[in-house]
Amino acid sequence: MSEIERQAHINLFIFGSGHHKAAWRHPDSPAERIGDIRYYEELARTAERGLLDAVFFADGHAAGEVAEGPWWFLEPLTALAAMSRATERIGLVSTVSSTFYTPFHAARMLASLDHISGGRIGWNVVTSMFDTEARNHGYERMPEHGERYARAEEFVDVVLRLWDSWGEDALRHDRDGVFADPELVRPIDHQGEHFQVDGPLNVPRPPQGHPVLFQAGASEQGRTLASRRAEAIYSVAYDLPSAQDYYRDVKARIRRAGRDPRSVAIMPGLVTYVGSTEAEAEAKRNELDLLLPVEESLRQLGLFVEQDCSDWELDAPVPELPPLEAFTGPKGRYATILRIIESERPTVRGLLGRLAAGGGHCTMTGTPEQIADRIGVWLREEGADGFNLMPPSLPGGIEDFVDHVIPVLQERGLFRREYTSETLRGHLGLERPAAPSHR
Amino acid sequence: MSEIERQAHINLFIFGSGHHKAAWRHPDSPAERIGDIRYYEELARTAERGLLDAVFFADGHAAGEVAEGPWWFLEPLTALAAMSRATERIGLVSTVSSTFYTPFHAARMLASLDHISGGRIGWNVVTSMFDTEARNHGYERMPEHGERYARAEEFVDVVLRLWDSWGEDALRHDRDGVFADPELVRPIDHQGEHFQVDGPLNVPRPPQGHPVLFQAGASEQGRTLASRRAEAIYSVAYDLPSAQDYYRDVKARIRRAGRDPRSVAIMPGLVTYVGSTEAEAEAKRNELDLLLPVEESLRQLGLFVEQDCSDWELDAPVPELPPLEAFTGPKGRYATILRIIESERPTVRGLLGRLAAGGGHCTMTGTPEQIADRIGVWLREEGADGFNLMPPSLPGGIEDFVDHVIPVLQERGLFRREYTSETLRGHLGLERPAAPSHR
Repeated sequence: MSEIERQAHINLFIFGSGHHKAAWRHPDSPAERIGDIRYYEELARTAERGLLDAVFFADGHAAGEVAEGPWWFLEPLTALAAMSRATERIGLVSTVSSTFYTPFHAARMLASLDHISGGRIGWNVVTSMFDTEARNHGYERMPEHGERYARAEEFVDVVLRLWDSWGEDALRHDRDGVFADPELVRPIDHQGEHFQVDGPLNVPRPPQGHPVLFQAGASEQGRTLASRRAEAIYSVAYDLPSAQDYYRDVKARIRRAGRDPRSVAIMPGLVTYVGSTEAEAEAKRNELDLLLPVEESLRQLGLFVEQDCSDWELDAPVPELPPLEAFTGPKGRYATILRIIESERPTVRGLLGRLAAGGGHCTMTGTPEQIADRIGVWLREEGADGFNLMPPSLPGGIEDFVDHVIPVLQERGLFRREYTSETLRGHLGLERPAAPSHR
Repeated sequence: MSEIERQAHINLFIFGSGHHKAAWRHPDSPAERIGDIRYYEELARTAERGLLDAVFFADGHAAGEVAEGPWWFLEPLTALAAMSRATERIGLVSTVSSTFYTPFHAARMLASLDHISGGRIGWNVVTSMFDTEARNHGYERMPEHGERYARAEEFVDVVLRLWDSWGEDALRHDRDGVFADPELVRPIDHQGEHFQVDGPLNVPRPPQGHPVLFQAGASEQGRTLASRRAEAIYSVAYDLPSAQDYYRDVKARIRRAGRDPRSVAIMPGLVTYVGSTEAEAEAKRNELDLLLPVEESLRQLGLFVEQDCSDWELDAPVPELPPLEAFTGPKGRYATILRIIESERPTVRGLLGRLAAGGGHCTMTGTPEQIADRIGVWLREEGADGFNLMPPSLPGGIEDFVDHVIPVLQERGLFRREYTSETLRGHLGLERPAAPSHR
């Protein structure tokens, strides 16, 4: 992965009509097309026109607040199968939960997709979080965090072994002999704490050997799993210093796990508002922020900061809030709110908008050159190996990025000028894992 | 479903390089393309050119005898998602096991596919059979038959309720109000013997209301489930009398279940060898039979009839076998073998070929007119409402049928001359189920 320190790896994180919660309320939004596969095919083609490494879907197993916007709709594995046929080179990354699937299902569907797409599949391993999701799959509540991660570790091991259960040259198509060499298709006979799986898989070895393993853990156990197994990492970083903290910690863990830290791209989420002038970019952001339903947003903010915000004046600066130590509720989001106030001095509406688009993720607002400047700094100064783009509105947000920011990055040598590989593994500079010898 | 007694419903059952076990051994077979999604897209387009109701995938969760031919490869849900984008009107039926999935997964993936395909999805409910499959999903062995069907009954109920959990007009896209009306998106709060599922689904109501429910049970419990729930039925019938027995029994059960028997199409599997003369059709069959590996086939036959067949002469008539009553092994297949011998008087090679292509399913060998004659008889005489085509070789077998048999059926008024619906439900003449009122 010789290029990793020089060129960015960029994914498009596809989410409804964009990552700003009010994006669907814009008159021009694709709200009516959220269930239309052609909409997602168009997004994937736009991302492919921009030579991005991959498009990415998060996933959830509960309906969420359906009044407030498009949450889930199409299921990612089925959507990506269709999208693979509308594109030729771009990677396709699906979230698959290690808590709600069996490893055989996950290994099989991802292997099948890797065949269908000609080697362009990535798997974002998540353990899922919410009791509302657990209660759709027969659990009373989510298993606790440590238990979920212990299961996830074993789940990933089993999936990798299932992908390895077909040797590289098992398929023979020998019309006078065997279709596949049974000596090269071997059971895995896994007997673990969470899973018993005989194998072999009923799908031959995927074109990439293994679909690319993404992970996004921020917790201690998440970072450990990422350092052992992840081949690319989605992260959350509000600003460069917090990105650097995460980057250095995780790269050191990868090194300690005996792997080459340069081979694992760390890709924080990134919300961008792109304009031909800074003012135009800001106007785009304000236009979305103005679409937020004020009463509901203030009510939610009140829950986050544990006080009544209903009479806060929208265009005034955010009133002073108690320090983190004095706050008795969940600290994570509160810390983000304090940091946004401290670093951006937003109006109340500005704060609502920041929280509505990306939350704790970095936001870059400005001209293509300004955004490319900041991306360049993050790449050079060990903040990131690339980004997981979270356009506040779609399709406009990704068109802006592809048409205006990508060319600047290319001029500066920070992004590829053409695809040099047919596979996602290739785009990310990752080696194809060799199948273990079954002989 | 006014046409059901007049016009056939015809599906293409896609299986590797065809349903004859030796088909992949033919020099022109697509053996190398069994993992290539374009191969399946071409088959689906051929079937759509023939105006067939649907293409269909069986499914299994264990690798099988990989030496002897293409067994599983692509996973059906992901393959059909891709194939839906290469076709416009034809239905797409996937097998999904009620034993190995959760109802939430099944409901969600099928609903997502129904959105992706614009209302063309069918679900073939199976309970799965083999311990080798169970042992890939964490069971020691398969749950026993009654337990599997009890689970399947509840599984189907939960899936239907999840599809109904979004009211018909729940999606509002009201930019000044709600994205979806939360009053029309309701939990199902299912607490059953096998499943606890809160709901609602995280996919809005499928375009068809419910994807079409297919079932293929031959057992007592399978027939009961079919009569209660199935909207179309795949069956196994060796000849017209056995088809009529099944047809009358299941139609009577459907009537007793309080449903309209005419609304449920019964579609036996059908193996066809089509030639411009009868001799040409027989030559096609012989060509495939000659590809069977003799020693292995005789060894398998020996297992079926419980005697050593290794010295049986291939081109001689099958030696006399003990009557069914005297046979101590599994009776089902043995009965089929006796019936083939009695009705067809085949050579040993002919018997091996019959068993290698479709087994207990009906085989029709002849000219397009001869096959259309027999199809007409089955349709008129309560043997079938249509067929699940099992071409012995692909793609040739379906091209033959589409190009030569379909036009004859059309001339005789036994098959549609154009699609008159956009959905699979429409092709089958089924009503779209109304969503229960959530008000």
